[in-house]
Amino acid sequence: MPLQKLQGAMRIFSCQRSYCLKAQGQLTKDFVEALKAVAGSSNVSTSLAVCEQHGRDESMHRCSPPDAVVWPQDVEQVSKLAAMCYSQGVPIIPFGTGTGLEGGVSAVRGGVCFNLTRMDRILQLNTEDFTVAVEPGVTHKALNSYLRGSGLWFPVDPGADASLCGMAATSASGTNAVRYGTMRHNVLNLQVVLPDGRVLHTAGQGRHFRKSSAGYNLTGLFMGSEGTLGLITQATLKLHGTPEAMVSAVCSFPSVQAAVDCTVQVLQASIPIARIEFLDDVMISACNQFSGLSYTVSPTLFLEFHGTPRSLEEQVQNTGLLHGCVCPHLPAPQDCGGDQERPGGIWAHRRALALNGTCTGEHGIGLGKRQLLQEEIGEVGLAIMKHIKATLDPKDLMNPGKVL
Amino acid sequence: MPLQKLQGAMRIFSCQRSYCLKAQGQLTKDFVEALKAVAGSSNVSTSLAVCEQHGRDESMHRCSPPDAVVWPQDVEQVSKLAAMCYSQGVPIIPFGTGTGLEGGVSAVRGGVCFNLTRMDRILQLNTEDFTVAVEPGVTHKALNSYLRGSGLWFPVDPGADASLCGMAATSASGTNAVRYGTMRHNVLNLQVVLPDGRVLHTAGQGRHFRKSSAGYNLTGLFMGSEGTLGLITQATLKLHGTPEAMVSAVCSFPSVQAAVDCTVQVLQASIPIARIEFLDDVMISACNQFSGLSYTVSPTLFLEFHGTPRSLEEQVQNTGLLHGCVCPHLPAPQDCGGDQERPGGIWAHRRALALNGTCTGEHGIGLGKRQLLQEEIGEVGLAIMKHIKATLDPKDLMNPGKVL
Repeated sequence: MPLQKLQGAMRIFSCQRSYCLKAQGQLTKDFVEALKAVAGSSNVSTSLAVCEQHGRDESMHRCSPPDAVVWPQDVEQVSKLAAMCYSQGVPIIPFGTGTGLEGGVSAVRGGVCFNLTRMDRILQLNTEDFTVAVEPGVTHKALNSYLRGSGLWFPVDPGADASLCGMAATSASGTNAVRYGTMRHNVLNLQVVLPDGRVLHTAGQGRHFRKSSAGYNLTGLFMGSEGTLGLITQATLKLHGTPEAMVSAVCSFPSVQAAVDCTVQVLQASIPIARIEFLDDVMISACNQFSGLSYTVSPTLFLEFHGTPRSLEEQVQNTGLLHGCVCPHLPAPQDCGGDQERPGGIWAHRRALALNGTCTGEHGIGLGKRQLLQEEIGEVGLAIMKHIKATLDPKDLMNPGKVL
Repeated sequence: MPLQKLQGAMRIFSCQRSYCLKAQGQLTKDFVEALKAVAGSSNVSTSLAVCEQHGRDESMHRCSPPDAVVWPQDVEQVSKLAAMCYSQGVPIIPFGTGTGLEGGVSAVRGGVCFNLTRMDRILQLNTEDFTVAVEPGVTHKALNSYLRGSGLWFPVDPGADASLCGMAATSASGTNAVRYGTMRHNVLNLQVVLPDGRVLHTAGQGRHFRKSSAGYNLTGLFMGSEGTLGLITQATLKLHGTPEAMVSAVCSFPSVQAAVDCTVQVLQASIPIARIEFLDDVMISACNQFSGLSYTVSPTLFLEFHGTPRSLEEQVQNTGLLHGCVCPHLPAPQDCGGDQERPGGIWAHRRALALNGTCTGEHGIGLGKRQLLQEEIGEVGLAIMKHIKATLDPKDLMNPGKVL
């Protein structure tokens, strides 16, 4: 059995290598020179090592490297480069921090990877409107460092230090979504380069407002589109007032049902809880092993309360009344990574579908969940998604092979 | 001058009549019989009076009556009726409560008005998941009456007792959006009959979940589409825990800037305020006259706080520290209607656009703001919206002449 496993691993490795070699060299020398003419020689690479670094994310999906990687410096360059790829029928793969978990950056048909990390300016912080605009290289940690002292913060935190535009592209979420919402609730508008190079401002150029009902919700359409409809080159985000104080708590339960019941009761009591993360016993055990922790191995809720000291006291007290074992002032738990390599954990995608749930709460569809998306959304929904894709990307060049 | 006004009014009235007469009789007798065969004879009308009642909403837009009105009883009927209209090239105009303010129900090219008010069941209340599904005839007041005693409520309140699916179609909002969000934040998924009769479940049939990143956000696409992409036949809504207690307050300011500053400070201090509505002095004066009130004629904020009695005390106290004139326990102000007939008020759409704002925060585009949408969203955005419209409604039969 160990031998079989070893052979399996070797086979996968060998496939990766042969694929990597095969995929190289599909761009003409002239085309690569043209990319360099736009972005500058030092911002284009066709080296095998660089392409392989860009052909996979942090998931188990195998490496599919692009034929070239380009680092645009601004939206005008992105626009020109996209138009060049579009006119030549070359696939375009957007790349942020590469921290995705669904194979979203795999260049399954080769093409040009657009590494957007060098566009990393924070623009237009507007403390009175609680908004900020960021380029695609800005990560959520970088933004929150920048905001320190302003009394504002951006609360969506998926664990990894992902880029904010990448988080918009994958409709990322995080453990404090219960109070602050996901990216879908916290992105006000986007600047997007369409596959043919046109620049779209989803809410109109230079505009920023908290709410609108002007026409179709283009911002929402690109949120979670995983780079299949265009390249997100700027996101305007909603900021929140920094909470005056925080309390975190870890709460063990005798059963999954008891943890669920407590969550429902906390929400029904309108306790404005900031963070709730549930881990079952299998995952707690894995976290203990991975990070050298010593949490009780049982279904567990990690909670966080934000507010004034006085309101925190009341929140914790009321939560305690609902469930006896709240232990405030414990340190926040560390992130314990993805779910796909833990077969005993509670995150079973097909079972979620069978219970009328979703196959993905936050990581997106990418390569691995396309069949599950079909099962989830059904025939008509899939047809509409394919129509939209064909409308916005008629040559199927934007991050091909993903989502649909 | 008064005579000219009178003549103008007479001209408008005369146009309406002639249009009403002209628009009648464009459907063949066979087609009307076919509608009756699906919906039942008593649920189809071609009477002039009924058609005129359905040809306008509560706005100043003139009446453009449909050729027939049909009251479907269920989604299967909506599907069959839409397919019939689609195959014959007959426009389809969805109709909820007719309380819109942008002329969204005007049948500018005649056709069949789908009055959906007889589909008024409240389905699948799920108190543990905080969700409920409603048919298009259910209004937000009816839903909240139904929820009384459950500990849950639906907070979006646009003033008029609009239907919830109509509120989804127009991306409605309300004065407590500051805490609970708009319809965009409170609709989890939709059932939509497409122009050709296909039934789309935007999140998959029978599914309900609070968050997902599975494929393109079809729910978001239909939110605010104003009936131009399909007929919303069911909406699954997010419910909230009923606040334990409420306090409302009315706060006068010496200037608009002072009222704005107070709002910003309240939000920066993370006071979880539920409602903020701003009225300038012109509007306060109009409200006083219209409703026999006696508010001080100056820029005014209407505030409401939700929470436990103890947290309310703190919220009101902290708001008071920011601004001295909070007067709790005053009754909530009455709704004072639309904005278009008050030229002195602060809601000037073009000025909002010039300041990088939106021409419509909540009522939609309808008939009257199509030019403003163009100015707001720009050429590329408009092109994408038109592409989407053409993709989902290739014959331009869904509520034609609206939005685009």
